[in-house]
Amino acid sequence: MSSSLLEQLIEAFRVLPGVGQKTAQRMAYHVLEREREGGRRLSSALAEAVERIGHCSRCRDFSETATCATCASASRDVHQLCVVESPVDRLAIEQATGYRGLYFVLQGRLSPLDGIGPRELGLDRLAARLGEGEVQELIIATNPTVEGEATAHYLAQLARQHGVRPSRLAHGVPLGGELEYVDRGTLSHAFGSRSEVPA
Amino acid sequence: MSSSLLEQLIEAFRVLPGVGQKTAQRMAYHVLEREREGGRRLSSALAEAVERIGHCSRCRDFSETATCATCASASRDVHQLCVVESPVDRLAIEQATGYRGLYFVLQGRLSPLDGIGPRELGLDRLAARLGEGEVQELIIATNPTVEGEATAHYLAQLARQHGVRPSRLAHGVPLGGELEYVDRGTLSHAFGSRSEVPA
Repeated sequence: MSSSLLEQLIEAFRVLPGVGQKTAQRMAYHVLEREREGGRRLSSALAEAVERIGHCSRCRDFSETATCATCASASRDVHQLCVVESPVDRLAIEQATGYRGLYFVLQGRLSPLDGIGPRELGLDRLAARLGEGEVQELIIATNPTVEGEATAHYLAQLARQHGVRPSRLAHGVPLGGELEYVDRGTLSHAFGSRSEVPA
Repeated sequence: MSSSLLEQLIEAFRVLPGVGQKTAQRMAYHVLEREREGGRRLSSALAEAVERIGHCSRCRDFSETATCATCASASRDVHQLCVVESPVDRLAIEQATGYRGLYFVLQGRLSPLDGIGPRELGLDRLAARLGEGEVQELIIATNPTVEGEATAHYLAQLARQHGVRPSRLAHGVPLGGELEYVDRGTLSHAFGSRSEVPA
């Protein structure tokens, strides 16, 4: 390789998820050959985002202001609060559903072995919020993993302590999926939770 | 989405090759959640590379200095010159082979319909270099596409005009490939160019 700046750029690209040596090379050469303007834009967007995006004081989601646009919005339903593990989960729900309530982002899941307890997930703040009396339903949308389920269990208890109704996303066969390829646990759950076909 | 800086960052990531909306989202969130330091490094590496990496005056490859490290090196064989279409091709040859000669990077291929002629590829400079008398072999490593072949043909003529021996990379069945999956043209060529097995 002829250029140490180029080597540094290739190395720097590897910080991105799913980007190995080959892809990083391709990205660096692509930017230099065809997208210098785009590269400049990416550089400044990255610098600004990393410096200025912090967390919303209400929902812990990413925000460049103290309170994020969703929490500050007057058009959201304050009686529903949806708890997710990470900002990407929040984004997925926001894009896929017509949900108009608010969110709370844990930025993780309960994992005592890694030293992640209720405090690290901001559950004291969530408890205080449930205590305010506005929230009527706590929609628990943690991931269906062992740790996510444990977190969901904890959250459901927390909700009940504050007289808030906890709910959980439905589990079952994914739409468009083929039974043959659905994993055993999901299929068993979907079979057990079958519902009557309305007339 | 709650943050317009975040939206800008996602949009900016789409400049990278093979990165669509979903991947760009994943990259932006990954950097913000887990890799702020790496994001900062990528931002400055990009800005520096885009500003400071130009082209080597000898070989037209990317270089942050007027003459790239390869061209300036005293340990390379000045009698061999390998012509490639783009810097990635040069990198691939450098990493895969033990080639110790020099390179010439066309930064494209002959394509009259797109207005890319010999001048755009720096072939006047290549001709001047062949005229200097140092180069004995011109290794033509353009891509085996229609335009690459046309360029190779042109380069071979140019070499002969200056009394330089042109050579071409071997075509054939890729190592580790299965005959069944090799395309017809390659297989036919490999069959026709078969060589005797040495005793």
